[in-house]
Amino acid sequence: MNVLWIFAHPEPRSLSGTLRTDGERELREQGHEVCVSDLYAMGWNPVVDREDFAAAEGERLLVAAASERAHRGGTLSADIRAEQDKLRWADAVVLQFPIWWNGMPAILKGWFDRVFVKGFAYGVRHPDTGRIRRYGDGLMRGKRALVVVTVGAPEPSLGPRGVHGDIDHLLFPLTHSTLFYTGMSALPPFVVAGADRMTPGCCAEVAERLRARLRELPDAAPIAFRAEDSGDYDENLVLRPDLVPGGTGFAVHVR
Amino acid sequence: MNVLWIFAHPEPRSLSGTLRTDGERELREQGHEVCVSDLYAMGWNPVVDREDFAAAEGERLLVAAASERAHRGGTLSADIRAEQDKLRWADAVVLQFPIWWNGMPAILKGWFDRVFVKGFAYGVRHPDTGRIRRYGDGLMRGKRALVVVTVGAPEPSLGPRGVHGDIDHLLFPLTHSTLFYTGMSALPPFVVAGADRMTPGCCAEVAERLRARLRELPDAAPIAFRAEDSGDYDENLVLRPDLVPGGTGFAVHVR
Repeated sequence: MNVLWIFAHPEPRSLSGTLRTDGERELREQGHEVCVSDLYAMGWNPVVDREDFAAAEGERLLVAAASERAHRGGTLSADIRAEQDKLRWADAVVLQFPIWWNGMPAILKGWFDRVFVKGFAYGVRHPDTGRIRRYGDGLMRGKRALVVVTVGAPEPSLGPRGVHGDIDHLLFPLTHSTLFYTGMSALPPFVVAGADRMTPGCCAEVAERLRARLRELPDAAPIAFRAEDSGDYDENLVLRPDLVPGGTGFAVHVR
Repeated sequence: MNVLWIFAHPEPRSLSGTLRTDGERELREQGHEVCVSDLYAMGWNPVVDREDFAAAEGERLLVAAASERAHRGGTLSADIRAEQDKLRWADAVVLQFPIWWNGMPAILKGWFDRVFVKGFAYGVRHPDTGRIRRYGDGLMRGKRALVVVTVGAPEPSLGPRGVHGDIDHLLFPLTHSTLFYTGMSALPPFVVAGADRMTPGCCAEVAERLRARLRELPDAAPIAFRAEDSGDYDENLVLRPDLVPGGTGFAVHVR
């Protein structure tokens, strides 16, 4: 497989940096090709702005429309096009980052904001049905995605009833609403909790667990999110009342 | 009241821009002082990096520790200190942004990543109890926060069973895990759904609804998140089993 590894930590000598080096080696040993986008090392610009789209100075900026036009016309900024080429090449994507304020660091959020433009990652219609391709379908269909995160808080506090919120739900806007939205198969995230207080022994154990997950990358079962065309949602995109009756929250979107 | 309005949209001539101008005027008419941080206009840098902390070139960067040291030593980047001064001044904060990939634009996420450093927004102990001040307590206690968002998807698809996920849950990492975490009183968000397909009449109605919400800013009831020192959580920060028995998901953290 061709694996694109997106790394969004400012310090290569961190636990995250070690896991990345280690994981990259494991993937190569498994015979995969690996391409790394080290966002900090690249000096990645995470801010969507009119310069991305070659939009005229005085023109009112409509982000979706301007991005689609620039994408179709081949006038998107070169740094965006380079990341899109890597995505086209990739069969799988690893997204690695530390959890900051219960979400992605800005540099990574802005990788999605800028690279996942209309016509590339969303807003594409199916040629036969005319339906917008999303949630299980889309141009990224067939690609696998593994989220790898480190988080300072200990595991119980990130569990189903933990004060910080269930980590699977904290990652839902990424796994479901971004990766699965564009058609990717999002795998269960790899979470390193309590990352601020790790002994060297713990780190070695974590690295081994990650290597095991990477060995399963080609065939691990993805999260069973409900596809939009599964018939599970009504015409307003609301879950049908007979499914998980009375249920609410992110969990209802998993079969 | 002193109101700090954080604006994170690249186009002032957008619906968001109109709502902001309108909202600012309403607040002044109510006798409040208003300070605006227009992140795009300011050219805000959202990327946490060692330059923020005057960290030595060869030194291994530990973000939390380095930020705390720089904060205490007064050596944080000037742009960060300026935003912190605005926060100290503010009695209320309005956070306005378009939802991109079910979250904040990177420029705003990086406002939190960079401004909310250790010793300022988290990791502060109570002088009497020694307990870490968070979730309902902290240096931002007493400040009110209103999140104002525009989102392209229509309302039903952002409801409790909508395919995009409940908007209140999508905003939980911000309202609960960031604003309430630092001690602020997070008000129910102001959500403009279907923002991409608005008629001028709709826009006028939305602007009027927002003005009404802003008039209530000084005394609207905040979201009833459970405080950490309420006794609702056990020593592992897990919700006590007798509260919402068997319940999981973000909703259990609201009384």
